[in-house]
Amino acid sequence: MFCARSVTAELITVKNFDELKSLPRDKVAGKIVLFNYPFDKQMAGEGRGGEAYGEAVVYRGDGPSAAARQGAVACLIRSVGGADYRLPHTGQTKYADDAPKIPAGAVTAEDADLIVDLVRQGPVKIKLILTPQQFPDVESYNVIGDLKGSEHPEQVIIVSGHLDSWDLGTGAIDDGAGIAVSMEAANLIEKLHLRPKRTIRVIAWMNEENGLAGSKQYGKDHEKEMSNHFAAMETDGGAGHPLGVNIKGKPEVKKMLAPVAAILQESGAGMLNFVEHCGADIEPLEKADVPAFSPIQDSRFYFNYHHTAADTLDKIVPKELAENSAVVAVVAYALANIEQPLPR
Amino acid sequence: MFCARSVTAELITVKNFDELKSLPRDKVAGKIVLFNYPFDKQMAGEGRGGEAYGEAVVYRGDGPSAAARQGAVACLIRSVGGADYRLPHTGQTKYADDAPKIPAGAVTAEDADLIVDLVRQGPVKIKLILTPQQFPDVESYNVIGDLKGSEHPEQVIIVSGHLDSWDLGTGAIDDGAGIAVSMEAANLIEKLHLRPKRTIRVIAWMNEENGLAGSKQYGKDHEKEMSNHFAAMETDGGAGHPLGVNIKGKPEVKKMLAPVAAILQESGAGMLNFVEHCGADIEPLEKADVPAFSPIQDSRFYFNYHHTAADTLDKIVPKELAENSAVVAVVAYALANIEQPLPR
Repeated sequence: MFCARSVTAELITVKNFDELKSLPRDKVAGKIVLFNYPFDKQMAGEGRGGEAYGEAVVYRGDGPSAAARQGAVACLIRSVGGADYRLPHTGQTKYADDAPKIPAGAVTAEDADLIVDLVRQGPVKIKLILTPQQFPDVESYNVIGDLKGSEHPEQVIIVSGHLDSWDLGTGAIDDGAGIAVSMEAANLIEKLHLRPKRTIRVIAWMNEENGLAGSKQYGKDHEKEMSNHFAAMETDGGAGHPLGVNIKGKPEVKKMLAPVAAILQESGAGMLNFVEHCGADIEPLEKADVPAFSPIQDSRFYFNYHHTAADTLDKIVPKELAENSAVVAVVAYALANIEQPLPR
Repeated sequence: MFCARSVTAELITVKNFDELKSLPRDKVAGKIVLFNYPFDKQMAGEGRGGEAYGEAVVYRGDGPSAAARQGAVACLIRSVGGADYRLPHTGQTKYADDAPKIPAGAVTAEDADLIVDLVRQGPVKIKLILTPQQFPDVESYNVIGDLKGSEHPEQVIIVSGHLDSWDLGTGAIDDGAGIAVSMEAANLIEKLHLRPKRTIRVIAWMNEENGLAGSKQYGKDHEKEMSNHFAAMETDGGAGHPLGVNIKGKPEVKKMLAPVAAILQESGAGMLNFVEHCGADIEPLEKADVPAFSPIQDSRFYFNYHHTAADTLDKIVPKELAENSAVVAVVAYALANIEQPLPR
């Protein structure tokens, strides 16, 4: 997360930001803070994995700076995810400008439980040795392929995933799956000899995990062509069975997509949901009012593997991966050939 | 497993002993052999976890010597267990006297898949660094407590689990659970003011995992009192819901226990099964024809955690732990008070 350091200090545990804030500064200063906010497995089990992740990941993102503001010398977080296999889960931490950048790391759910139990019994001192390194940026690229539109080649529908992954696993579900789904969607349209009227652009984004450099660069490079970006899709939730399509756009978009949803319903993917946000890499497009879409994916198990050493190819069910490609292909082709423009 | 060593050599993969034996010696000599025998998750999912373990664990036990006999310089095995969380599973390896003691280790299921895939693409060289150490034996003890019988104090029913665990986890399921169940069984009998006619002996065995020293010593110390050992129980399959009672004994024992099974059936634990073997620590007693028993435990998930870093207390469901104590208490009390002796 930050830079290699060794820290030895007493540890205190808090459940959340409110509990941290309620502590006087001298209870926190000089100490290591463990945020012991448990990932809500029940919520994930109900299919709301993304929500469960959202609730817990703020401690990984903002915990270290929050602890540092009260004088903490290091920060640990309980791993964000549903696995109970002593598996650490890591990811991006955002250091705020108004706080010292203290070392931070993740412990497994089991180890968080152990530490909390030890603290209950008396003062606990911890020696942390963290060895991450931040290397200088190197040149890298988005990979872009166009299936040219026959009538409006200048109008673009993006279908996309991201090339990079967090370092612990091989990145099969995050986001090899998204790349495979997007490439296969274009491949399916070709194979079926369909002729999209607008251009379908497959993008494999570079550097989603560590600052969205590829996505930001694309936004900059195409700043003046946003009106020609008809729609943008991203698949970045693994390869779980698709249940429908998320929409970030005007209410009318849902009505316009109703005939598409009726087709998708035959494979159990007919839901149309409005969301605030369809994908990290397509956010610059969302901000330019480009209508955005993503498949709604079964999220019950995704956060058992996401950003862990267990994110490997065996976690992907080929049939479910194919179902996602079908959904993205159907939506992309429909958007490419729809008569009216989508309202913005 | 053996001693610290570094080995660099080409790796070959085999599925099982037959495939290894089918290879000419020069295909194996000087190489590292990976036994890629997958744990049968389907079988475990059907509740036959112990059988699935038995089929796969022979490669951990006997694989290194089998490979060494054909000239291999080191041995890897695919982890024995059902978890797909990049989690290595280790345990005892038996080096045969007729083969060099080559270094051996376990790789996760995911890494075994990866290696097999790489070998398919071309020769794979592996550098193994194994750092285990074998320390001299130290003095340690079985812990034994008697609930004295009121009529036949010299006749003993053993209820037991083992104190040690394999090193990766904390040993909550293997076999903290067995110790807790056995102590609680005696505690329940006390609390209910029941008076066992025979002695109920709680034993926490020392050193099950690494050679059964405690069990062997007990067998030696009590060699001449085996006829006074009325029965022996061990709980060493975790804390999953009990389904009944395993029996190693004469066919008549099942008939004699039928009224007990009828009571246990009310809590879903009424099965009586004959087995070859009821527990590693009570094997010296079994060999002396002491009738042996163990709870039949839900084994669907046990081998996801057994001998891994994830064998921690959070894996134990308190209610199911209590159910096991109840089964052991009922069986032990019944055996302590049954009129006739059990046939041998």
